[in-house]
Amino acid sequence: MTRPDTPTPEETSALRDAIDRALAARHESGKAGIAAAVLHKGQTIATAENEVQLQSDPTRHAEMVAITRAAASLGSTDLSGCVMISTLQPCEMCLAALRFAGIRRVIFAATQDRVAAKYFVFPHLRISDFQADGTFTAIGGIDEDRVLPLYETGEE
Amino acid sequence: MTRPDTPTPEETSALRDAIDRALAARHESGKAGIAAAVLHKGQTIATAENEVQLQSDPTRHAEMVAITRAAASLGSTDLSGCVMISTLQPCEMCLAALRFAGIRRVIFAATQDRVAAKYFVFPHLRISDFQADGTFTAIGGIDEDRVLPLYETGEE
Repeated sequence: MTRPDTPTPEETSALRDAIDRALAARHESGKAGIAAAVLHKGQTIATAENEVQLQSDPTRHAEMVAITRAAASLGSTDLSGCVMISTLQPCEMCLAALRFAGIRRVIFAATQDRVAAKYFVFPHLRISDFQADGTFTAIGGIDEDRVLPLYETGEE
Repeated sequence: MTRPDTPTPEETSALRDAIDRALAARHESGKAGIAAAVLHKGQTIATAENEVQLQSDPTRHAEMVAITRAAASLGSTDLSGCVMISTLQPCEMCLAALRFAGIRRVIFAATQDRVAAKYFVFPHLRISDFQADGTFTAIGGIDEDRVLPLYETGEE
């Protein structure tokens, strides 16, 4: 049985795929090397990369685009039971967005303490501040070494 | 001279217009009665209502749509110097989004303590937690009585 603080095989596989996309996206015009996915019943229903520059829209982080696409895929704004996968710890905007969408489980690679400060806008807040009600699971640091070169200096 | 903790005449006027739009939007199909605007050099460059149901997208709060449109209007993801106007205290997602966009001043009507809990996803966090670095001004409660009937019971 999988412990709740351990990624499932599907989650591990989806994160590996997201890291592959992030490493590729950094070389694509207008994209940044940050990638996300949304899983529903263990299946990937949405994938996305950061499109802030591509769309000239500061709200289009990878997780936000993934939420938009997942909601379209399910035909519902309620993503309860879905899992968010991200190559980078979700920022405060994305954490709140996924909570509004009903997502209660997040698996990510690079953790806030090991990346450039620019990826977070309220640096005195930590992910633990967003978990205080106990209904939210965040598992970070998975395959972290593969993505740290992308985020350590804030180039993405 | 206007004190920084007092809305300017342009901000007061833009908030009044936003409240008018919120009161109208609640009767429009698919829209919710929450409205926002972005000001640049005292001029309104973007207006929006909540489009979560209209677009079936949980990320499309009024402030988020306003940021998207303001960035398109200026042709830049950098909205530094702009002011966010909202009929309701921005949630954690919108606060982070406007900070990422460089917005450092927010004027709003209804305050968190007087509205339904559903408008915020991390209820133990208050707006003061997002102002800790001292570079952010939030002025709430302006014309609050006009909008409280919309938000007190969480019907919008």
